[in-house]
Amino acid sequence: MTLTAASGVAQGADGPLIPVLAVVGVGLIGGSVALALREAGQVGRVLGVGRNAQSLTRAQALGLIDEVATPEQAAAEADVVLLAMPVGGVRAALTQMRPHLRPETLLTDAGSTKLEIVEAARAVLGDRIGQFVPGHPIAGAERSGPEAASATLYRHRTVILTPLPENTSGGVARVRELWQACGARVFEMEAQAHDRVLGSISHMPHLLAAAYMAQVAGADDAALRLTLAGTGFRDFTRIAAGSPEMWRDIFLSNRDALRVELGSVRAVLDEMERAMVQGDGEALEALLLRAAQARRNWRKE
Amino acid sequence: MTLTAASGVAQGADGPLIPVLAVVGVGLIGGSVALALREAGQVGRVLGVGRNAQSLTRAQALGLIDEVATPEQAAAEADVVLLAMPVGGVRAALTQMRPHLRPETLLTDAGSTKLEIVEAARAVLGDRIGQFVPGHPIAGAERSGPEAASATLYRHRTVILTPLPENTSGGVARVRELWQACGARVFEMEAQAHDRVLGSISHMPHLLAAAYMAQVAGADDAALRLTLAGTGFRDFTRIAAGSPEMWRDIFLSNRDALRVELGSVRAVLDEMERAMVQGDGEALEALLLRAAQARRNWRKE
Repeated sequence: MTLTAASGVAQGADGPLIPVLAVVGVGLIGGSVALALREAGQVGRVLGVGRNAQSLTRAQALGLIDEVATPEQAAAEADVVLLAMPVGGVRAALTQMRPHLRPETLLTDAGSTKLEIVEAARAVLGDRIGQFVPGHPIAGAERSGPEAASATLYRHRTVILTPLPENTSGGVARVRELWQACGARVFEMEAQAHDRVLGSISHMPHLLAAAYMAQVAGADDAALRLTLAGTGFRDFTRIAAGSPEMWRDIFLSNRDALRVELGSVRAVLDEMERAMVQGDGEALEALLLRAAQARRNWRKE
Repeated sequence: MTLTAASGVAQGADGPLIPVLAVVGVGLIGGSVALALREAGQVGRVLGVGRNAQSLTRAQALGLIDEVATPEQAAAEADVVLLAMPVGGVRAALTQMRPHLRPETLLTDAGSTKLEIVEAARAVLGDRIGQFVPGHPIAGAERSGPEAASATLYRHRTVILTPLPENTSGGVARVRELWQACGARVFEMEAQAHDRVLGSISHMPHLLAAAYMAQVAGADDAALRLTLAGTGFRDFTRIAAGSPEMWRDIFLSNRDALRVELGSVRAVLDEMERAMVQGDGEALEALLLRAAQARRNWRKE
């Protein structure tokens, strides 16, 4: 297991860390990077790229980006291009940029799964793959769009980079510094480990919360249930409000790892149901104790 | 479906609503009632009953109770006896109190399931069952014990009463006023509907969160997973830290309703897995959209 945490933000000797940043997909994730880098004085000009013209206009009005650009312009002008759109759109964006990419331009992304994106990037970028440093900021909210962007979104949050053998150490360091300038702590690990771990601690909670929420909403007495639901329900289901389009892409992209985890969660549910049916209070309590202790000890180390 | 919400706290004409309150089990739930009624000026003397002498001493030191009493004393002296211990202990407490119970004393409880408690109360109280008004405050926290008690725990929270045919309307009104004096809104419904609905919106989230948390904690790379877990994980698993003993009792007590719900949640999980396996993005998104819309609309009416 390769897992290293780096800390300490390098300050640009003279001028910002990133003279020209291009953000492809200026919503919560990309917009927040732009705002955070601006606040830290680590970015010069910000180009905004996207398919939704309205969204780009709003992003400009909100001060997230300085100007709207095409993928081609971004590839030719930017020092760093951040791909911050749903996983499904990355291949098309890279294909448009590839012919215009300067050799010194760095590409990075914010996708929630890494194996699929790395595969797509390899196919499109070919011998330029070394310019792509895959990344994933573990931050987000139930809100989305440029209006949701915030300079503080990544403060004290975790960002995982899954560097490729072809990356230069200078390139990886620059992307690391970008995220550190946003206030994040940066870890490095392999793409496969990333997808397994995130399948467990991010995608699986969403899968369970969404399945549960859909089940409650479909009940005959859904209105009564929702009237009486309290604070436990509130916190447990919060993530189920997230973007259906984004999570559809994540689930499809990471289906292999997710199915392994789901099988394992099902086995625990089976064990709990068996204990209930048989009135086996001891087994039930032991299982609940294991869960409670793990949760109580979390973030206490 | 009988569901009525009552509002408006009746103020005692002269003197508090409850001259002598006995709280059996002075932890978070019972202690918070005592504090809230005191703050509202609606209780005279508070007797504390419990098996744990240390806990009672702490409750007295914290000002939750005025004096420690036996179940027999509580039955003979109190105007209202609140049973606020785990479901499993109610039968024994009622058995001790029954011979000493004055005819005008009201009994009520705070148990998370109602059918089992009503059955136990009927068996023990016999022709005095009309004195028992079953109740359930939907409030709680991951913390427990007298130190966790707070005068504001029930403010704007929901309390469900499941009155019995044998209850007098005056008795039900008094218990309703007790909870309203604590700041809660009070609903009335049948015990069976209560257990079905709570099985869905309270017990099922706990079952899923605990099963998931136990699964993560049991993984080979649990430490890595827990290091990288973020805010979605935090909220989704919060309830899994709850008392294993209390939740064991709830799951066993409400196993019938809970198993029906679990079967229904499993069916949605099956459908999501099928969509993932078949790459059926449309079905997956439709399901996620149903969940997201229901969650976004919750508490907006």
